[in-house]
Amino acid sequence: MDNVEALPALESRIAALVAQYAGIPDGMAVPRSCSSVMDAVASQGVTSSEGGKRLRARLALAAFDALRPKPDGDDEAWRGHRAAAADLACAIEVFQTAALVHDDIIDDSDLRRGKPSAHRALAAALGDDPQADHVGRGLGIMLGDLLATASVAIAHDAAAALPKTESIMRTFLRMHREVEIGQVLDLAVEEAPLDRPEALASSSLGVFRWKTASYTTIAPIELGLLAAGAKTAKAQAIAASIGTPLGLAFQLADDLIDVIGSSASTGKPVGGDIREGKRTVLLADALAGAGEADRAELIRMFEAPERDADDVARAITLFKSTGAIDRSRGRIATLWRTAASALDEAAGMLGLSPASRDLLLGACECFLPKDLRGC
Amino acid sequence: MDNVEALPALESRIAALVAQYAGIPDGMAVPRSCSSVMDAVASQGVTSSEGGKRLRARLALAAFDALRPKPDGDDEAWRGHRAAAADLACAIEVFQTAALVHDDIIDDSDLRRGKPSAHRALAAALGDDPQADHVGRGLGIMLGDLLATASVAIAHDAAAALPKTESIMRTFLRMHREVEIGQVLDLAVEEAPLDRPEALASSSLGVFRWKTASYTTIAPIELGLLAAGAKTAKAQAIAASIGTPLGLAFQLADDLIDVIGSSASTGKPVGGDIREGKRTVLLADALAGAGEADRAELIRMFEAPERDADDVARAITLFKSTGAIDRSRGRIATLWRTAASALDEAAGMLGLSPASRDLLLGACECFLPKDLRGC
Repeated sequence: MDNVEALPALESRIAALVAQYAGIPDGMAVPRSCSSVMDAVASQGVTSSEGGKRLRARLALAAFDALRPKPDGDDEAWRGHRAAAADLACAIEVFQTAALVHDDIIDDSDLRRGKPSAHRALAAALGDDPQADHVGRGLGIMLGDLLATASVAIAHDAAAALPKTESIMRTFLRMHREVEIGQVLDLAVEEAPLDRPEALASSSLGVFRWKTASYTTIAPIELGLLAAGAKTAKAQAIAASIGTPLGLAFQLADDLIDVIGSSASTGKPVGGDIREGKRTVLLADALAGAGEADRAELIRMFEAPERDADDVARAITLFKSTGAIDRSRGRIATLWRTAASALDEAAGMLGLSPASRDLLLGACECFLPKDLRGC
Repeated sequence: MDNVEALPALESRIAALVAQYAGIPDGMAVPRSCSSVMDAVASQGVTSSEGGKRLRARLALAAFDALRPKPDGDDEAWRGHRAAAADLACAIEVFQTAALVHDDIIDDSDLRRGKPSAHRALAAALGDDPQADHVGRGLGIMLGDLLATASVAIAHDAAAALPKTESIMRTFLRMHREVEIGQVLDLAVEEAPLDRPEALASSSLGVFRWKTASYTTIAPIELGLLAAGAKTAKAQAIAASIGTPLGLAFQLADDLIDVIGSSASTGKPVGGDIREGKRTVLLADALAGAGEADRAELIRMFEAPERDADDVARAITLFKSTGAIDRSRGRIATLWRTAASALDEAAGMLGLSPASRDLLLGACECFLPKDLRGC
C-alpha cells in the first residue's frame, strides 16, 4: 500500500467493512418474511456510507505514515500495522455516517450528499404503506445504531492488531461520547437567546470543539499516532494542540462557505443555514457588529418560524455589511496559524523528517480552502 | 461481595456508572449557556436507568459465580475479577436502557416503567418552547446514543481487568448488533400480512431470538462464563443452548402476561399489545386456531388503525376460545424444559458443583413465573 491511500481504495474498503459489520452476521439467518426489510436497511448502510471526502480517514493515515513511514523493502510487521491503521481510519468514517444518519432524523433533513437521507430512503422503500414515514424513521434510528456499533467493532478488531490496543479503544469511545455530547450542545445552542451576541459566538465556538473537532481532527490525529506506536499522553497532547484549532477553523469555514459559496460545489444550496435559522458564529458576529436597526431586523428574521429567499439574500447582505464575514475569515486564518505552528512543534517532539512533516501538513491543509488559510 | 448482589447494590452501581460514563468527561467543560440542557440529558440518563428488575445482570453474575465460586478466605485476584464481572453485568443493563430509550421514540411511547419516557421527559424539561416535542425527540436520540456508547466503554474497562478480554468485547458488540437487527426485524414483522398465521408465528419466534434472547439470556450467560475464564467456544455454545429457549420463553411469557395479567403488577395495563395492534405469537396462534368468522373478525380488528376497550376485551375472549393462550402456555413450558435440560448438560460440561448448578438454575427461573414453567 502506498502512503496515503487513493480515495477509491478507501471507498471500497469502507463499503466492504460496512457490509461485513453492519449486516446479518456470517452463519446466521433471519426469518424469511423479514429479510427484505433487513436487506433494505443493510444496503442503505452501504449507500449512506458512500461519497464522503474521507478527510478524517486520510488525516489519521497521514499521522500514521508521518510517524512510521514505509520502510525500504518488504516488512511484514509494517504492512500488518498499516492495514490495521487503514481499517481504524475507515472506522472513523463509518462512525461519521452513523452520526449523520441520526443527525438527519433530528433535523428532519430530506437530503444528504445530494441523495435522499437514510430515513427518507427507507420510508420510500416501504412503498405505499400509510405508516411509511413513521417506520422509515424507526428503521433510520436503528441503522444509525447499527453503524455506530459497526464502527466500534471495526475499531476493536483493528486495535487488536496494533500496539496501544487499549488506548486506541479508549480514544475511539471517547470520540463517540464527545460527538454525542456535541450534538446535545448543538441542540442547546439553538435555544440560545439572540440578545447577547458575544456569548452566542463563544458558545458556538465552544460547541465546535465537541461536535466537530472531536472526530474530525483531534481523534484522527490521536488514533493515527497511537496506531503508529506513539505514547498515549504524547499522542493526546499533540492531537489536541493541532486538532482543536484546525477543527474549529474547519467548522467556521464550512459555515462561511454555506453563506458565500465556494468554487467547488458543496452539494448544498447557498444560505441553507440561514434558511433553517441556525445560530452560527456568523450570525453572532453580525449581531455584534450591527447597528440598532440592523440588529433588530436580524433578530426578527431569525426568531420567525421560517425564512424565504428574500430573507436569505438580506441576511447575507447584512453578514457582509456588519463585517461578520470578514471577522470569520480572520478567525479562520488565526486558528490555521495556531494549528500550523502546533504542527511544527509536534514535528519536533516526534522527531519527524521534513518529508513526514510535510505529509501531515498536507493532510491538515485539505480541511480548509487555500484562500481561507490566509495564504 | 456476596454471591449474587442484592438489588440495591446493583442499582447504585448502575447509577454511578451512568453518571461517570455518560456525562461530561472529567476535566472537561461545556459552554455555560448550554450546560443546563446537557445536565438535563445526563440526569435523564440516570433516571431512565432506574428501576429495572436487573434479571440480566443477575444472570450474568450467577454464571460467573457458578463457575468461580467465592473462595475460602480473602482472595484479591478473585475480588478484582468479581468486581469487574459486576461492572460487566451492569453494562448489559445500561445497554438495555439505551435500547429502550430509542425504542420509546420509535414507538412514540409516553411511558416507561410507570414514568415519562426519556424523550417526553426531555421535551417537558424544555418548558414552553414551541419546538419542545421536536427537540425532546432529538435529545432522546442522543441520550440513547450516549448510553449505548457508555455501555461499551463500561464493558471495555471491565474486560480489561478480566481474562478473555477480547472475547468479552466481541461478545458484547455482537449483542449490540443482534439487538439492533432484532429491532429492525420487529418493525418488519409489523408489516407482515395476517393471512398466513403459521408463518407469522414462526417469524415472530425467529425475531425473539434477535430482539430478546440475544441480550436477555444468551449474552449474559456467555459474558458471565467468559469473565470467569471459560473457553470462548464453550461459553458461546452453552450460552446459546440455555439462553435461546429461555429467552424465547421469556418473551412469550411477557406477551402472555400482557393479555392475561399477572399477580405481580407489570406496570402496564392489560391488553396494551392488542390496543397497539401488535403482531404477536398469541395473535398468530389465535388466527390459526379460529374458525372462519372469528378469523375474519380478528383480521378486521388488527388491520384497523385503532382498537378501543371493547375490541381489547373481545380479542382476549378470542385468544382464549381459539386455544391461543393454552398454546402459548404449552410453548413456554416446552421451551423451559429445553432450557433446563441444556442447563443440566452444561453443568456437566463445566464440572459445576450441585450448589453452583442450583445457583444458575435459580437465576434462570427468575425469567418465568412458576405457573408458566409448568411446575
